[in-house]
Amino acid sequence: MFEDIMENIIVKHPLVHCITNYVTVNDVANVLLACGASPIMADDEKEAEEITSICTALNINIGTLNSRTVKSMLAAGKKANELSHTVVLDPVGAGASAFRTKTTFELLEKVKFSVIRGNISEIKTVDKGCGTTQGVDADVSDAVTDENLEEAVAFAKGLSRKTGAVIVITGAIDIAADSEKAYVIRNGNPAMSKVTGTGCMLSGMVAAFAGANKGKTLLAATAAVCTMGLAGELAFKRIEEEDKGTSTLRAYIIDEISRMTAGRLEGGARIEVK
Amino acid sequence: MFEDIMENIIVKHPLVHCITNYVTVNDVANVLLACGASPIMADDEKEAEEITSICTALNINIGTLNSRTVKSMLAAGKKANELSHTVVLDPVGAGASAFRTKTTFELLEKVKFSVIRGNISEIKTVDKGCGTTQGVDADVSDAVTDENLEEAVAFAKGLSRKTGAVIVITGAIDIAADSEKAYVIRNGNPAMSKVTGTGCMLSGMVAAFAGANKGKTLLAATAAVCTMGLAGELAFKRIEEEDKGTSTLRAYIIDEISRMTAGRLEGGARIEVK
Amino acid sequence: MFEDIMENIIVKHPLVHCITNYVTVNDVANVLLACGASPIMADDEKEAEEITSICTALNINIGTLNSRTVKSMLAAGKKANELSHTVVLDPVGAGASAFRTKTTFELLEKVKFSVIRGNISEIKTVDKGCGTTQGVDADVSDAVTDENLEEAVAFAKGLSRKTGAVIVITGAIDIAADSEKAYVIRNGNPAMSKVTGTGCMLSGMVAAFAGANKGKTLLAATAAVCTMGLAGELAFKRIEEEDKGTSTLRAYIIDEISRMTAGRLEGGARIEVK
Repeated sequence: MFEDIMENIIVKHPLVHCITNYVTVNDVANVLLACGASPIMADDEKEAEEITSICTALNINIGTLNSRTVKSMLAAGKKANELSHTVVLDPVGAGASAFRTKTTFELLEKVKFSVIRGNISEIKTVDKGCGTTQGVDADVSDAVTDENLEEAVAFAKGLSRKTGAVIVITGAIDIAADSEKAYVIRNGNPAMSKVTGTGCMLSGMVAAFAGANKGKTLLAATAAVCTMGLAGELAFKRIEEEDKGTSTLRAYIIDEISRMTAGRLEGGARIEVK
Repeated sequence: MFEDIMENIIVKHPLVHCITNYVTVNDVANVLLACGASPIMADDEKEAEEITSICTALNINIGTLNSRTVKSMLAAGKKANELSHTVVLDPVGAGASAFRTKTTFELLEKVKFSVIRGNISEIKTVDKGCGTTQGVDADVSDAVTDENLEEAVAFAKGLSRKTGAVIVITGAIDIAADSEKAYVIRNGNPAMSKVTGTGCMLSGMVAAFAGANKGKTLLAATAAVCTMGLAGELAFKRIEEEDKGTSTLRAYIIDEISRMTAGRLEGGARIEVK
Repeated sequence: MFEDIMENIIVKHPLVHCITNYVTVNDVANVLLACGASPIMADDEKEAEEITSICTALNINIGTLNSRTVKSMLAAGKKANELSHTVVLDPVGAGASAFRTKTTFELLEKVKFSVIRGNISEIKTVDKGCGTTQGVDADVSDAVTDENLEEAVAFAKGLSRKTGAVIVITGAIDIAADSEKAYVIRNGNPAMSKVTGTGCMLSGMVAAFAGANKGKTLLAATAAVCTMGLAGELAFKRIEEEDKGTSTLRAYIIDEISRMTAGRLEGGARIEVK
């Protein structure tokens, strides 16, 4: 299922332009190298377009946004669209402040995204910025669970229809969906929530995976979600054995991503099609 | 002694708004998650007040300050005061440049802090910004030692009286004091000075511990200091056994914080009341 | 060969002012502590000169430059020159955008560097900013190899003549050269390219090593290059034994630097004089 996806990353070695927050930027860079891609971080308007031009994909993360970097996000996003590059949005904290929500809406209006990845609360904020709200929204309140899974999948497909982007909702259960098809992914470990940046790292990987696999965005994004989840499981098992804590968990997650193969991924992925 | 303090963090899961330097920001975020709190980093004036409003505590660290972030510190600090949130100041490098000293003084003038944490040199600079200097200041020159401990404790209590904040002075011997009472803490290991950010991480933890324990600020700050020191001791023991160096020490410090319990802390804390 | 160099770092404990990118800044700070130096990060124009004044060396890295920090780089660079401090340039991504190239040229024009360290592509961009190009340039295309080593060494010596700086070109084979003499260093491991920041960390170490060894800049820079390469070899050996990945490799590189001694370095260094 993921063999071509994984091979394309190694072969194409995609360069990913990241305009991302300074909290997790080092982990994002290291995870991109770990999965076979290359990172370039550049957040100034003076070079945003030019840097994006030499890349395969653009990863926009609003985690520690400010007026200066928002301009760069818009400039890079438009240029990446012109060049038909893969563009990923990680709307960190959308809904938590008017500035983040407004910036998310402005990005959605001016840039066409290939993938939008966030937790359910961020993705619901994204939905509010995309015209008329749908009935299903209200049913997916705090978390995606087995009880509201059908509604959550319908919501993700609906938002994909509205935005044209693959929608990735991460949590205890992950969903990756385009307007027609959804994958439900049950990899990962709850301890991952004790490590900052697993979401940011995943968005970077989604940009790399999708950038190296044009025309297969949904499958590529799903492979990235499974890779992160499986790495989390393997890493957690190891820290339990070695009696270690959350910082070593973080290191082992990246370690496992650097050692991931298509075979290993296929063996460990827990995916269902909806 | 620390059972309630530790339990409140787990139960209340405080959200801590950090306006902090970009050198150690990832470690601060990870240590907050490790100790049972949650971090949110936001340094732009456009959202500083709003983000602080949804939090329990605010952690201001001037490590890599600039004109843009100083405005956000002031705005967030005032808003946090209005809402009676816990507010911590980490005056990194105060005294090393006029800009840092001036910013420290401006923050002290316009924001009421619950806790101020720094090394002796930074705290002495803080003292200079708080009106008339006291006689004891001159006696605590470079480091807190057994020889000048009484003077240092008196100095900390005096500064607490002037500022209304709990004063935490860290070094080989740590002091946490309000105007009446001081705890002298002898946990930690000299190798911790070979890891950047143990001070920044501690300030983040102090914000979380005090935020979850309103009305017990001194005891909460002391618990945070002990937690960091004991984690350092345990981490150092382990890198010695495993023949490792300073980067693994950093990881193991956070690991130990993520595995800390009230029982473990009480067993390892070396505290004296002054 | 390196005994005095290494001892001077421990004895003089140089304070290194870094104006560096936010991607790898934490690793740079930790590696400076690991090798026996101390870091201070300060990138605002309001304090750049003052902070540099209290330091031994200045490390300018343009990895995530912006208009605000470029001003600080120029101000700090000029002040460091006035005070005859060691000044290192790491022209990250020079050639990748007009902004980075222009900034590199402006820095070269207005600041006198003690050492310039980059990969071959960055150093070739530096050369373009230094007046008339030399014939050898074209021959050193993508990487320094055994085939083009003589040309690369001649190029490095020529650029040192033009800039007055020791030139350090890193890659599979590393070169450190002044106008008269070059060291070719064959330490390191290809897996190091899967870790972000080994170059940035090395530039920080070069600033520390050269700052503590005035008058021996070439030898000090060479010692730093060997230290990083040997640490990479030892770290790689260990992750192979322990079945780990790239994040642990990063940690072990810093671990090995923190455990490096002159004896260990002499035993492992693979150097040739050209």
